[in-house]
Amino acid sequence: MTRNELKYALLTDLYQLTMAQGYWESGKGDEEACFFMYFRDNPFNGGFAVSCGQAQLAEMIDGFRFEDADIEYLASLNAPLGGPLFEKEFLEYLRGMRLTVDIDAVREGTIVFPMEPLVRVSGPIMQCQLLETALLCCINFQTLIATKAARVCLAAETPVAEFGLRRAQGAGGSLWASRAAVVGGCSSTSNVMAGKMYDIPVSGTHAHSWVMSFDDELEAFRAYAKIFPNNCVLLVDTYDVKRGIENAITVGLEMRERGERLIGIRIDSGDLEWLAKYARERLDEAGLTDCGIVLSNDLDEYSIASIKASGAKVNSWGVGTKLACAYDQPSLGGVYKLCATRMPGEERWTGRMKVSESTAKLTIPGVLDIRRYIDENGKLAGDMVFDVNEAVNEHGVIVDPADVLRRKTLGEHEFETLLIPLARNGESVLSDEDRNAMAAQKRVKAGLEQLDESQKRQLNPHSYPVGLEQGLWDRRAKLATELRGR
Amino acid sequence: MTRNELKYALLTDLYQLTMAQGYWESGKGDEEACFFMYFRDNPFNGGFAVSCGQAQLAEMIDGFRFEDADIEYLASLNAPLGGPLFEKEFLEYLRGMRLTVDIDAVREGTIVFPMEPLVRVSGPIMQCQLLETALLCCINFQTLIATKAARVCLAAETPVAEFGLRRAQGAGGSLWASRAAVVGGCSSTSNVMAGKMYDIPVSGTHAHSWVMSFDDELEAFRAYAKIFPNNCVLLVDTYDVKRGIENAITVGLEMRERGERLIGIRIDSGDLEWLAKYARERLDEAGLTDCGIVLSNDLDEYSIASIKASGAKVNSWGVGTKLACAYDQPSLGGVYKLCATRMPGEERWTGRMKVSESTAKLTIPGVLDIRRYIDENGKLAGDMVFDVNEAVNEHGVIVDPADVLRRKTLGEHEFETLLIPLARNGESVLSDEDRNAMAAQKRVKAGLEQLDESQKRQLNPHSYPVGLEQGLWDRRAKLATELRGR
Repeated sequence: MTRNELKYALLTDLYQLTMAQGYWESGKGDEEACFFMYFRDNPFNGGFAVSCGQAQLAEMIDGFRFEDADIEYLASLNAPLGGPLFEKEFLEYLRGMRLTVDIDAVREGTIVFPMEPLVRVSGPIMQCQLLETALLCCINFQTLIATKAARVCLAAETPVAEFGLRRAQGAGGSLWASRAAVVGGCSSTSNVMAGKMYDIPVSGTHAHSWVMSFDDELEAFRAYAKIFPNNCVLLVDTYDVKRGIENAITVGLEMRERGERLIGIRIDSGDLEWLAKYARERLDEAGLTDCGIVLSNDLDEYSIASIKASGAKVNSWGVGTKLACAYDQPSLGGVYKLCATRMPGEERWTGRMKVSESTAKLTIPGVLDIRRYIDENGKLAGDMVFDVNEAVNEHGVIVDPADVLRRKTLGEHEFETLLIPLARNGESVLSDEDRNAMAAQKRVKAGLEQLDESQKRQLNPHSYPVGLEQGLWDRRAKLATELRGR
Repeated sequence: MTRNELKYALLTDLYQLTMAQGYWESGKGDEEACFFMYFRDNPFNGGFAVSCGQAQLAEMIDGFRFEDADIEYLASLNAPLGGPLFEKEFLEYLRGMRLTVDIDAVREGTIVFPMEPLVRVSGPIMQCQLLETALLCCINFQTLIATKAARVCLAAETPVAEFGLRRAQGAGGSLWASRAAVVGGCSSTSNVMAGKMYDIPVSGTHAHSWVMSFDDELEAFRAYAKIFPNNCVLLVDTYDVKRGIENAITVGLEMRERGERLIGIRIDSGDLEWLAKYARERLDEAGLTDCGIVLSNDLDEYSIASIKASGAKVNSWGVGTKLACAYDQPSLGGVYKLCATRMPGEERWTGRMKVSESTAKLTIPGVLDIRRYIDENGKLAGDMVFDVNEAVNEHGVIVDPADVLRRKTLGEHEFETLLIPLARNGESVLSDEDRNAMAAQKRVKAGLEQLDESQKRQLNPHSYPVGLEQGLWDRRAKLATELRGR
């Protein structure tokens, strides 16, 4: 696996650096802070999300340092009203800076829900902030795409290949998108570089231009089959789909004569549902029952579900644009909030929160983790967000963060705790297994098995119970009242 | 300027490589092809697009080669039905391959329209195809974001800072997004790495967490003002906006006492329109008439236009998510189509086209360029797509590609030809000026000046006339008829 060589220290908002200088100058640089990253609503109006991006976050942590060229660049910046933006001494401090933060995160591929801490960063406040923007970018985007992929794959049931590179949001965006799509459940990507970088399966055969470069479609098909007898899926809609199907049948039968097999035909335009049924009929009539049908063209979970509901038999799917850039919701609004601070030498953390908005938008004070309760059938019963430094109430009562009257008692169930160490003292500690995309894909499949069907519904899913540990809810309410009263 | 060191040869769909082997094996590797990249509809239901990404395309061309590790990776891939996917000899060929294509493209920052060739690639068909996916990704995404930025900036009139990194589609996506946003008209980005890589202005001050890390908002503001007297914009909505404004006024007056200036206050939540007016009133009453108001929080061209229409006076804007991932249309559907071929040694190109879809989706055969006609007032009169190897009709008649009855005669006007060389014989030839983001930004401003106001309208804009040169229209119709008749 090739690791991306981009150094990430400058991949941040400028205000993180101005604030860093502020902390440094005001002597707060060593104050410790704890931040947590979470999102407020499941993407795509769905019932769950698939966490993703932790492996890249670990790479970023290990690649975090200010190179001489970075320092030189920062020294060249001027303030809007004149003079250098940064102080020389501060820049020298940055040049020598090494991360010392601890990071905990859920494993890649874990099914997650709103208001849960997906990543927790603690250490000198300045470092926590310098990491914020890149961390959010990394986890927000990959979680978004892994979730979309899981939804598409749940709808498709048969294998889905991701091929959105040409419409993805940039070269780098495409690489993360391809990896996250595979974590979410896609069986392959068309993106060769992603295949190489992340050790994930790649797939692909030919495009319309192959057919157009020959004088005749049949000739083009024959040439392709001859060169790739073991990877032959013929694209039949360059000129006329029906004629294309007949040409593919001709070639498929010729291949069979030679002891080879036409794996499938791909249809990339027109009324996919009608054409898939028509093609299946024609292939079966011709005796090519082992030749599959691949559909592509602007597919997503909704169009796939509709095609399947019609009874069309589709062996695999190619999904591009709508997956690789999460077309119907191209961003996950994950946030990174200060949740606790302590002074150097202090043992005890003090909870912090931001209160300016509605109750639903209050942040959660404390050093947080997730307890996932599992019922006697192995299904997920509910999640509790709790403070690792406080006792958990004995009955395992959780309270809806936005509605004190919605409570649930989970104490009767077994539980597991979800955050695991991602970095210690500024260095990543994820195991190879926990960085591996295919292992994360398995985790997604297992996690989705544990969810009730109603919670996986594409439209209006049943909401999964997530609440604050009762004592945490009470402490939060008290702190909000105090802060608002100031 | 640091150039990204990513090598781009593998940034492609796998089928480009399987087809490449196909061309190589079937002896078509040296056949020459001409492809052009275009889009069919303006993004965001707007009246124009801003072309962007050419500088990165030039970098990709120069970074295009198959490294030993790439070849090793390709050699490790297996076909679905078994055996290695690629042949050893072909991989050796790839290892030694150097690009020889010629590429022509419109300049970055040129205002462009549907059906126009933005990029034209000609050379050995295999090379043209190997470049397709990365080229599309590069131009599609950056054109999308530059266009969005231009729309936002037209609405805003006062400066717009892009700060979408945390919600962008990946680290790489964010870098291209920041650059494209500046090309489209943003005055700065928060993304420090983009600032360094692309030599574009960066901006930023502080976040809510700065305020939260102090016991008291006033104390936090004072500390920030003391450290950054020349870059002081105070974020006033951490706890309560009205109280925040009063605290900022206190600090602004203290700064004035010291001969310094509070540049502005930023409001990032709540009813932005109401709060902007309230803040302006309070600042003016306090005598801080030179303290500006900065708004942010989920803004786009529509919310900005609405705030401005209310009469609120806003000095600058921060626009993140909705710009950096083009929230309402996260992908531009640009395509790359074969438009001509010729055999080795042939002088003459033969037009090619794909006909399976509706008339509006027919491709355009020929080696294409754009003539832009300019009227006596310096405004754009219309664009003609023409074949560089054929005569242009003497009256300059253009015909709507999808409607033979819509014609326009442009011959009376001056014109300029828009495609310029981007690469020759596989090496980029763009001048430094033509790679420069700020130069492209100027081009956008000048180009938008030349467009009629009605064509820049956000909703239901007047459509700008683009047509095929009459002879080209006729040749295309003839070829479509022939191909459909086959």
